[in-house]
Amino acid sequence: MALIVQKYGGSSVATTEKISRIAEKIVAEKRNGNRIVAVVSAMGKTTDNLIKLAKEIISEPPEKEMDILLSTGEMVTVALLCMAIEKLGEAAEGFPGYFAGIKTDSVHTKARIQTIEPARIIKELEKGNIVVIAGFQGLSPDSAITTLGRGGSDLTAVAVAAAVKADACDIYTDVDGVFTADPNLVPEAKPIPEISYDEMLEMASTGAKVMLSRAVEFAKRYNVPFSVKSTFGAGEGTMVKELAMKEGTDVSAVSLDAKQAKITVFRVPDKPGISSMLFTALGKENINVDVIVQNVSKDNFADISFTVNITDAEKTLKITKELGKEVMAENVVCDRDIAKISIIGIGMMNHPGVAGRMFHALGKERINIEMISTSEIKISCVIKKSDGAKALKTVHAEFIES
Amino acid sequence: MALIVQKYGGSSVATTEKISRIAEKIVAEKRNGNRIVAVVSAMGKTTDNLIKLAKEIISEPPEKEMDILLSTGEMVTVALLCMAIEKLGEAAEGFPGYFAGIKTDSVHTKARIQTIEPARIIKELEKGNIVVIAGFQGLSPDSAITTLGRGGSDLTAVAVAAAVKADACDIYTDVDGVFTADPNLVPEAKPIPEISYDEMLEMASTGAKVMLSRAVEFAKRYNVPFSVKSTFGAGEGTMVKELAMKEGTDVSAVSLDAKQAKITVFRVPDKPGISSMLFTALGKENINVDVIVQNVSKDNFADISFTVNITDAEKTLKITKELGKEVMAENVVCDRDIAKISIIGIGMMNHPGVAGRMFHALGKERINIEMISTSEIKISCVIKKSDGAKALKTVHAEFIES
Repeated sequence: MALIVQKYGGSSVATTEKISRIAEKIVAEKRNGNRIVAVVSAMGKTTDNLIKLAKEIISEPPEKEMDILLSTGEMVTVALLCMAIEKLGEAAEGFPGYFAGIKTDSVHTKARIQTIEPARIIKELEKGNIVVIAGFQGLSPDSAITTLGRGGSDLTAVAVAAAVKADACDIYTDVDGVFTADPNLVPEAKPIPEISYDEMLEMASTGAKVMLSRAVEFAKRYNVPFSVKSTFGAGEGTMVKELAMKEGTDVSAVSLDAKQAKITVFRVPDKPGISSMLFTALGKENINVDVIVQNVSKDNFADISFTVNITDAEKTLKITKELGKEVMAENVVCDRDIAKISIIGIGMMNHPGVAGRMFHALGKERINIEMISTSEIKISCVIKKSDGAKALKTVHAEFIES
Repeated sequence: MALIVQKYGGSSVATTEKISRIAEKIVAEKRNGNRIVAVVSAMGKTTDNLIKLAKEIISEPPEKEMDILLSTGEMVTVALLCMAIEKLGEAAEGFPGYFAGIKTDSVHTKARIQTIEPARIIKELEKGNIVVIAGFQGLSPDSAITTLGRGGSDLTAVAVAAAVKADACDIYTDVDGVFTADPNLVPEAKPIPEISYDEMLEMASTGAKVMLSRAVEFAKRYNVPFSVKSTFGAGEGTMVKELAMKEGTDVSAVSLDAKQAKITVFRVPDKPGISSMLFTALGKENINVDVIVQNVSKDNFADISFTVNITDAEKTLKITKELGKEVMAENVVCDRDIAKISIIGIGMMNHPGVAGRMFHALGKERINIEMISTSEIKISCVIKKSDGAKALKTVHAEFIES
């Protein structure tokens, strides 16, 4: 008898018909002799509708009230899923996140989980009930409803799995697991049977957003293996867990992030502290800087290039121009016509020549590399956006298909 | 500085525009130096939409889950009203009913309030916040969300007013208070400035359903005077409270209930216990019997007539026919073509002749009286439905306009 935590996202519960089908899956698992905790999101459009109502009242709704408002979305799904389960003859017990013992800090709309007190969940499981929990929400120290922000329901599932010491944690989604590349761009892409937490984190940061990093980071910290599966598909999905170094398979996946912009500061006087000033200023504005390259020229002037998310480009350019003026840089420019192609794999650090092989593959296709960034399990190249699709196919063919 | 509990029903919060207008009213009261607790219902159609979703899953949704589902409706209003208040520059704190300390029994969909622990409400008031509470909902002893059933938000308001020892409790609705008769039927009807709990209770039972009895009963038991006012109108409304016997005004209101049916059992053997058997059987099926008349004929057979709500007519007829057969009654018939006209007033018991005056007024208009029922503060006559409107005008003219 296994204890299984399952998470069903917004598209999996978008209609009452889908909720009824999920109930069938859950009941089948229960009748296989397992104990089930299901974590659910709000039904497809619910959240958007609630946000629309709030904006009719006030253009920038206060966050504490936004949390009360949005938390109702998952509660509706909880109630409906329990009904569908009971219709099939099994007992269900549904909770809002705050009754499930999920305690957070007080940062409304993006609260962080502090502790989980799973006594009530465990009590209901022991009674033989299927437990259904509203994802995405918790309770602050002063007993206000909080929500966990984007990717919050995944986080609820992983955190509950850790707290109840689940045997399995299944994140159900509308894709068949994690792929070697985006199947929409690379028809040859195939599902990855298992992947490490670190690779999964790198994939999130390279633009392959199957899941947001927060839940993966939590899973890594508390070592909660989980799988990513298709809700209504039949595949085995991808198991994400702590993996030993793999022999042979040096590259697990290839990803393309076409939503970046490159900022270049030309001829900065090469004095210590200038980069630090710049990146501290951007950090204060919550701008995540990704790839950074700095070339020092012979005459004590440096060029600094870095990439940011394209939605932050305008703000970044403004801040960088102000600072560039201060330090007497020659010029600051922004290039929105770029993309980042990355290869990811925990085996790659032990395989010299992987980087060279990637550059060679791109070169053969006359794709110019503008910037390079490497970590122990990732190599990223910034290229022209128009080369993106070709680069992805080429690199996928080189490392995955060969 | 007064502490005021206000209740806004579903039609008062039907749109975000109305919610914004209510926020203005509340903020104005606050700036007059008062402390405010607002109790709100779900927005107009919300509850219907939620019920529709549930019925897509299962034709008879389980009650515990129905409570989780329906309780989200008021929470949406709470969040939106708090936003609208904060937009106007005042601080608001919103709670679901269960965080407001409203403890109920475990009878889902029609829970009864057991206790109210108002500590959190009082704390927030002391901080200077306007407190907004979701009406209609509470928490069971085993920490499940419950709802209070029809009229539940009125009950929440009266109960909270009792618990926080409010100086005033204002029930806002879409009518200008309680009228001497239904203004749609009697243009001469006028608002009643004040009325006793008992009269208000009798009015609910005679079909003048400004408010359901439960909240009024609670108000009477704990002596919580409250007023019924129009949300967006300017009138003073009606104050409902403990009233001493009034001199002069013997009749406060006249009401017509056209939703009754009369069942008659002909020639029942006049033995003790037969009526008891019948009304016990009906009680078990939750059928409320209203006016009862029994005539004993000379030959030891009796005719029993009684009225029930027309929606219960079918079921009542079936039960009564079965029982009629058993006790060898001659026949059982159902007349759906009736109405009940009532006069209500706490002064009437000291004024002999009120009943005679009512019968005379009806007789002058050739309205036949089929059944009569009296209490200390009410006289009801069952008449033909087609005579209803005329009877109401006649009796209103006789007692109120004269």
